[in-house]
Order: sequence, then structure tokens, then C-alpha cells
Amino acid sequence: MTLDINARRLLDRVEAFGGIGRDPGGGISRAGFGAADLEARERLHEEARLGGLDSAVDAAGNVIVRRPGRPGPADRPVLLIGSHLDTVANGGRLDGAYGVLAGLDVMQTLAEHRVELAREPVLVAFANEEGALFPQPFWGSKVLAGALDSLPADPRDHEGRSLRGPLARAGGDLAALGTAVWPAGSVAAYLELHVEQGPVLESGGHTIGVVDSITGRTQFAVEIRGAAGHAGTTPMELRRDPVTAAARVVLAAEEIARERRLCRVATVGWLEVQPNSANTIADGVRLTVDLRDSDPVNLELAEKALRTSLATLAHESNVSITVRVDARAAPVHTDPALRAAITASADELGLSHLVLPSGAGHDAQIVAGIAPIGMIFVPSAGGVSHVPEEDTADADLVAGARVLLRTVLRL
Amino acid sequence: MTLDINARRLLDRVEAFGGIGRDPGGGISRAGFGAADLEARERLHEEARLGGLDSAVDAAGNVIVRRPGRPGPADRPVLLIGSHLDTVANGGRLDGAYGVLAGLDVMQTLAEHRVELAREPVLVAFANEEGALFPQPFWGSKVLAGALDSLPADPRDHEGRSLRGPLARAGGDLAALGTAVWPAGSVAAYLELHVEQGPVLESGGHTIGVVDSITGRTQFAVEIRGAAGHAGTTPMELRRDPVTAAARVVLAAEEIARERRLCRVATVGWLEVQPNSANTIADGVRLTVDLRDSDPVNLELAEKALRTSLATLAHESNVSITVRVDARAAPVHTDPALRAAITASADELGLSHLVLPSGAGHDAQIVAGIAPIGMIFVPSAGGVSHVPEEDTADADLVAGARVLLRTVLRL
Repeated sequence: MTLDINARRLLDRVEAFGGIGRDPGGGISRAGFGAADLEARERLHEEARLGGLDSAVDAAGNVIVRRPGRPGPADRPVLLIGSHLDTVANGGRLDGAYGVLAGLDVMQTLAEHRVELAREPVLVAFANEEGALFPQPFWGSKVLAGALDSLPADPRDHEGRSLRGPLARAGGDLAALGTAVWPAGSVAAYLELHVEQGPVLESGGHTIGVVDSITGRTQFAVEIRGAAGHAGTTPMELRRDPVTAAARVVLAAEEIARERRLCRVATVGWLEVQPNSANTIADGVRLTVDLRDSDPVNLELAEKALRTSLATLAHESNVSITVRVDARAAPVHTDPALRAAITASADELGLSHLVLPSGAGHDAQIVAGIAPIGMIFVPSAGGVSHVPEEDTADADLVAGARVLLRTVLRL
Repeated sequence: MTLDINARRLLDRVEAFGGIGRDPGGGISRAGFGAADLEARERLHEEARLGGLDSAVDAAGNVIVRRPGRPGPADRPVLLIGSHLDTVANGGRLDGAYGVLAGLDVMQTLAEHRVELAREPVLVAFANEEGALFPQPFWGSKVLAGALDSLPADPRDHEGRSLRGPLARAGGDLAALGTAVWPAGSVAAYLELHVEQGPVLESGGHTIGVVDSITGRTQFAVEIRGAAGHAGTTPMELRRDPVTAAARVVLAAEEIARERRLCRVATVGWLEVQPNSANTIADGVRLTVDLRDSDPVNLELAEKALRTSLATLAHESNVSITVRVDARAAPVHTDPALRAAITASADELGLSHLVLPSGAGHDAQIVAGIAPIGMIFVPSAGGVSHVPEEDTADADLVAGARVLLRTVLRL
């Protein structure tokens, strides 16, 4: 049997979804539960239906696609294939969507050929993986894996708007999240296909990455409160300026990774000043600090160093600094048997492959709490992601989907 | 003759205008040409009309109030009284509005008693003094004084929206700004009553401040461009992060005033990150730097130091930094004869007074280009301004308006 995906159909869908939430400058802004994200979800339902598949939404807003008339997870463990449709602000068209659409093509191929498998394949498009609007990254996979341990009663976005309404519009239900948790043993294996988002595969000339581990991440919400005042009449020595304090926080975070090498990377990507007026000493600054490393001990050391630096800064700058952990993801390892299946599939297709860690976080690391996981990477042009220039050659996109199909058939 | 203002009427109006643009937290956000500013202008027209005065709007959006049936500026030089109605974001109810409303009460008092004066008093509420929305502070006074030297063809706010529409809605006309310029010799003297916005009068126990000079200010728009990337996969040493570069710019500006003492104060009050996402290394940061000093030589030295620091930072951080002067106001001195008239008026009323400089900028410094200026201060509680807590005792507000009236009568 020479079962194959439909390469043209896959590439057409990647292009079509790349038009949803497109910014004037060419990037994609499809924040989880924002308008463009809702449009992409609708499109996925439509594509699934036209492809002869069933699609549904769970209480967390995850879109779940199945072959019709097949036994559900209550009967026997499924083979779950997934990724996400949401993006960061002004990101690329492949991060997340590629894995979902390749999974859709695999599902459709298996349905068209009525392939019987030991494990029924199920596709999931996880909701709000990035957390661009609602600061709950990995939202959908956390709910599904029963890993949502610290949810506020009424989760809100950075502007204070409740998740309740947008989640309901996506077909979810904040009051019924428990119904979206999958029971223990319901997932035999989880596979995620994704762009690498780094330069390793491209620079080594490899088509397929076999992921051995996913980096851990701790994301902090930092709030600095000072004292507002008139920019012209408040002497420098009497100021309690949260903007200059925030500048010191940004540099302290950078130093933890760059000079002190306590963790691999540290990033402040989001920062807001209140009231944000050129003539006014601000009264508050909020910002995020994102620390990543594959070693949980390093992450702990980096967090301790950050908290110590911020306490010192608050004292020296005469401001208050509060630090809250917004998200904490432990480093995880992929399953050896799934790695072997991916490697064998790439070999079967004659594709050059490399074992490598993932520097970015993925829903897979959450699903790892309830199931063995495997991840397949394809090269990122220039090693960039989360930017409009994010790209992967068509041949590599097709190759990745083929490896996904072969791996599913092999399990 | 014991002519007096109507204290109750003044305080009621101050309270009424303090409700226009009020934030949930109690501050006032009445950015020039924003919705709340338009509402305040309409209210001023209405109060003037009910008070038996004529009001009109010039092409720059300045509201100009006159006693009906009196000769205009073409006939003989007027005595101009002014301030502004717009505020910074989340500012106070007195900065600007107090001077306009006290001037309105003086005008109404003079009209009611048909007082004949050598110089006809005219009230002006200058448009967009703060520049909170459209980064052209002193907009209205600059147009009136013919001092608008570097206007873009189509002035835009920080979000790129044109001034054209909002100005038209206020009754102005961007294409006819020339008609709003007052001819040389048309203003015999300009008086502005304002809250001090600093702690000097309150701490010294004085009711009236006689301003001898207004601080100069140079406001820069700084744009930092780096390279966006994924926060998890881009190694620290390959980053061109505009957020860490911006942090260094903020601290360089602070250092110029605080450690190097090249100018009195330096402030970064406005800062925006693009795209502003926790998972993404930003590609750009824009911020303002505001430098102030009463000595023009110091301002020049501070500007040179800032430009040198930023050039070095751009090189070291591998980002591009562009610096544009958004506003430049030279320090100015008030007119000795007007200072004497204010002092004599305060003495006549038995009010304690003090000569002091203004640390904040005012429309008066722009009008100084075409007329002798005088400025009257009243105390600011706690020395704060541009914040919701900005306040002045009712008795001081009334005292300031009385000094303004006596000074007008004396000229």
C-alpha cells in the first residue's frame, strides 16, 4: 500500500489559513479567542466537514476532529494528533496551523481509504496555545490533560476582559471545563508536527527533526508601582519612577541569561506604561519576563536570581515590585518508541533527519502529563518564527506531513 | 469700586469641568481633540454664551471669548488672558482648566459691570497644550503666535491618525491655519493663571506665585528598531532586542539629569513595544525623552549628551536608533511690568506672594514670542500635578482669580 497525503490540498489549506488574521504588513495576528482565531476555527470545522470528517468543540474551546462512525476514547485509547491555530501578535502562518492542517490531511487520507488502525486517530486543534490575548498559554492542552492547576475564577486578558464571552463564542463553556478533561489512559500516544522555529535543521541540511526534549519555561507577570508626577516640576531625587525601575528589571532579566548564564534565554517581550504620557512621570509599569531552559534546576536557579534582583531593585528605586508566575512549564522528554517510529518513517521516505531539542514550548509538553509524546520538526527558513518572515519550503511541509502519516500507520 | 469675581460661580464651573473626561479612578483624561476635550470646548461655548459673552473658534481650534460689541484686535492691542482645557492622560482637573475658567469669570465680571479698560480683555482657551494624543504640545498657542515652524504636512497622533478630522470637529481647519495667526502688535500683554504643579508655594505658606521664568523643554521621539524573533529559540548572543536597548536608553536619559546634572530633569513617560507579546522578541520600541532646564545652554549640552549616548547604545546593542525632536521650547522670562502689577494686586488683596520659576511648560512661553507675558500661580496640594490627586484649596482658587481680575484692572 502506497498511501500518501494530498500535497496540493495541504499546501492550499496552509495558504488559505495564512490569509486569516493577516496584518497589513504581511504577518498573522490570530490571538487565541480573538476574532481572527474564531474565523480560523470556523474554517477548520468547514474543511473537516467537506473532507468527510466530524468536528466538535469541547468546553475549553479545543476543536476535535474524528473519522465518523468510529469508536470514541471511552472505548479504547486513541492516537491523538494535534497542534494549535492561534498565533502571537504579528507572527507567522505556520507556527501551529501547519501541524493542524497536516493532521487534517492525514485524517482525511485515512478516512478516504478507510484505513483500519490499532489506535483510532483523532485530531485536536488546541485553543490558545500562545496566550497572546488571554495570558493562559497552553490553555486547551492543559484543560484536556487535566493540568490546569491555578486558574483564576474568572480568567481575564491584559485589558481586564473576561475569557467567558470569547470562549462561549468559540463554542466552549467556562463553567463546564471538567467535561473537556480526558480520562487517564484515553490517549495511547500524542504526535505533533511543527516548524522548528530555530536554525538547526536548516543549517545542518536536514528535512526532518526528531525532537528529544521540549524546553521548560517560566513566565512571570511583573508589576512595578511608583508615584506619578509632573515631568517638569518633580526633582530627580524625589522621583519614584516605575519606568526607570522597569528598565533596570529588563536589564536584570537579560543579565540572568546572557552574563550569568543561569538559564538559556530570558525575554521581556511585553511591557506597558501607565498612564503613558510624555509629560508625566508614570505611576505603573507592567511587563512579562520569560525564562527558558531544558534543565528544571537551571530554571529554578534563574527564578531565584530574578526574584532576588527585583527585590533589590524595588528597594533601590523606591518602588514596589510584585512578581506573579503566569505560566510554568517543566521541561519534558519525548517517548523513545515514538522517536523510533518517526525516525523509521523518515528513513522509509529517504528523508535526512536529526535528533534535536525544542527551544520553544508546545502543547505536546502538556499532553506529556497523560500520554507518551512524539514531535516531528521541519526546517524554519532563517531559523525565525513568531515573525511575518516565518517560512518553510513547500517540499519540507509536504515531507513533514508524509512522516506524520507514516508514523501514524506504523503505530 | 470693589469689583469682585463670583467665587461660587467659579468653583461650580471648576467642579463641572472636572466631570468631563473623568476616569473610573477619579483622574481626568481629556487629550487635546479627543472626545472629552470636544465636550469641554462645547461646555465653554455654552458657559460663555449664558454669561453674555461671544465665543468663537479659530482655525487652530483655539476657543476665543470676547465681550460683545467691543473693538477687535485689528483696532487696538488687546489684553489676552489664557490657558488650556486639554489634559494629560489620567491627569488632574485644574491644570489648564482653572486658568480658563478663572479668566471666564473675570471676563463675565467685566462684562456685567461694563468696565471700560485701556486694553480690551480677550480670553483664549488654547488647543492641545499637553500634546497627550497629538504630539504637538502648545499647538494652539504656537499657531496664534506664528511660532509653528516645523509642522508635518499631515500631523498625526502616535497611532498614525490624522489631526485633520478631530481639528475640524472642534471647529478648526488645518488648511486655514494662517488665519489663526495674530498680527504683530495685536497683543498688549498676556496673562495666565495656573496651578504651580510643584511644592514651593505650599511648603513656603504662600498663596500667590509671581512667575519670573518658564523652564525650557526639548522633547524627543526615539525609535529603536531591532529584529523580532521567537523568545524560546533565538540565542541571547544572536539577539537584536529593542526592549533591552530601550531599557538602556531610559537609563541614559535618567543619568543625564540625575548623575551628570546636565539639565534639571529628564523623563521617559511614554513607551510602546511592537508587537508586544510575551513570547516574542520585539522588533521595535518607540519612546519619548523629555529634557527640561531654565538655561538654554544646559538644554543644548543635555541634548548633545543624549544623542551621543544613543549613538553608542545603537552600536553596542546592534539596533538602529533614530532621534527626532518633537517639541522644543526655549526658556523664557516674564515681563517686569506685569510681574509688578501681579505683585501689587496680591498686596492690595493682602495675599502672601513669592517670586518663583515655573518648572512646567505653559502656553505663556509661546505667546512670549509676540507679547510681554505675566504668570500667576496658586499652590498645588502636595506639589503634585498631572495626576488624579492634583488639587488646590478653594480659597486659593478664588484668591488666584481675584489677583487676575485686579491685575487686569491695573493694566
